[in-house]
Amino acid sequence: MTIEIIPLAFDHEIEPSHDLSILVLNAAPPLRSGDIIVVTHKAVSKNEGRVVDLCGVQPSARAVEVAATHSDPRFVEIVLRESRQIIRQRGPLLVVETHQGLVCANAGVDRSNAPRPDSVVLLPVDPDRSARRLRTSLEAQTGRRVGVIVADTMGRAWREGIVGTAIGASGLETLRELVGAVDPNGYELNSTVVAIADELAAAADLAFGKLDRVPFALIRGYAAAGDGSAQEVIRSPQHDLFR
Amino acid sequence: MTIEIIPLAFDHEIEPSHDLSILVLNAAPPLRSGDIIVVTHKAVSKNEGRVVDLCGVQPSARAVEVAATHSDPRFVEIVLRESRQIIRQRGPLLVVETHQGLVCANAGVDRSNAPRPDSVVLLPVDPDRSARRLRTSLEAQTGRRVGVIVADTMGRAWREGIVGTAIGASGLETLRELVGAVDPNGYELNSTVVAIADELAAAADLAFGKLDRVPFALIRGYAAAGDGSAQEVIRSPQHDLFR
Repeated sequence: MTIEIIPLAFDHEIEPSHDLSILVLNAAPPLRSGDIIVVTHKAVSKNEGRVVDLCGVQPSARAVEVAATHSDPRFVEIVLRESRQIIRQRGPLLVVETHQGLVCANAGVDRSNAPRPDSVVLLPVDPDRSARRLRTSLEAQTGRRVGVIVADTMGRAWREGIVGTAIGASGLETLRELVGAVDPNGYELNSTVVAIADELAAAADLAFGKLDRVPFALIRGYAAAGDGSAQEVIRSPQHDLFR
Repeated sequence: MTIEIIPLAFDHEIEPSHDLSILVLNAAPPLRSGDIIVVTHKAVSKNEGRVVDLCGVQPSARAVEVAATHSDPRFVEIVLRESRQIIRQRGPLLVVETHQGLVCANAGVDRSNAPRPDSVVLLPVDPDRSARRLRTSLEAQTGRRVGVIVADTMGRAWREGIVGTAIGASGLETLRELVGAVDPNGYELNSTVVAIADELAAAADLAFGKLDRVPFALIRGYAAAGDGSAQEVIRSPQHDLFR
């Protein structure tokens, strides 16, 4: 069955006063059960007021020390506030573990596409909750069973470039376990777990573009089922060989 | 514009005698310029005879030592032959750097979906070359300009689950650089590089499934342009903070 990825445009800045479900429903064809809506974390963060004006930020002594000559201590201050710990630092790059548990550059704090100059956009406080809220609202209005993913783009170890990644999810399995499933030769596939939510987020990122006003994508034809969270996709530190 | 991911089935074991381009053209709608064909590395590896029967493998002393009580020393022997170095080991899991430069579990050597019991499938020797060969053949037969990706599923640092990843590519940009591009607010996006080929491989993996006979997917609506390699997506060891 063909899977479709349909970009959903909104040609204005997203504000806290917006109802994201209305923006999705205005831009999308009539939703069907099994549809998946992927929303950029920036749309969610702006909608939830997770924007900080750097002018009002007083950097701590630690932020000044970490920033050294590489970067803006006010920016580093915000990154540190959003982080549990620094995992690696090289020049202006800080790879941290965020309060959400994500390992990513600069705690996902981003200057680009911020609503005002000298402001930065943070990650949503609880992206799984953000996904659940949008899903509940979409389902209430349409009577359809849908999945929602909140996506960010993230760097990886060992590989260049960022890729779309699920940081919040509701209404779909995020990890599909194939343990014990048998391949066509009767050979047992041992412990294959596919990070479905990340693959869907990567697919949606192909439709987002970085410069266009496309905060949402509809993925149709990959039936959403189950109800996992993006939190489950984060490897626990004690099982992680690389932090 | 809508992006479509169309699974292309082939209901038999792939053999060295097959011409992959014929299998693709038999399963796909008429190709258009800009189409991207994603092929599983297993289809390529089987086609290129990269299958080893473990019965004939004599494990070295080092393989016996590395395998310890965790795994089959013959399997470990093959993994070591395919590797430049071991990056991490925990129990039966070996994270290595392969001769292709990829950092991945067990050098991509895989027992599941192997053509015979007790045989394993290796990665293609040069997956970019494999992609180029298939692309050349498809273009010669159709007169269309297409892109080809050879995909594997790989684990990640920090996150659970495997995701579709590009290990070979031809006829499309693999990294899209947005350095200096300006977002709608006139704010400069600094050094954003998107790993397009990996996002396309992840999208295709949604169509592959693990148990079905779907060795190919057609991605339509995401115009292939440029001509990067999957080799470029591998971060060089000296720029890598995590090996």
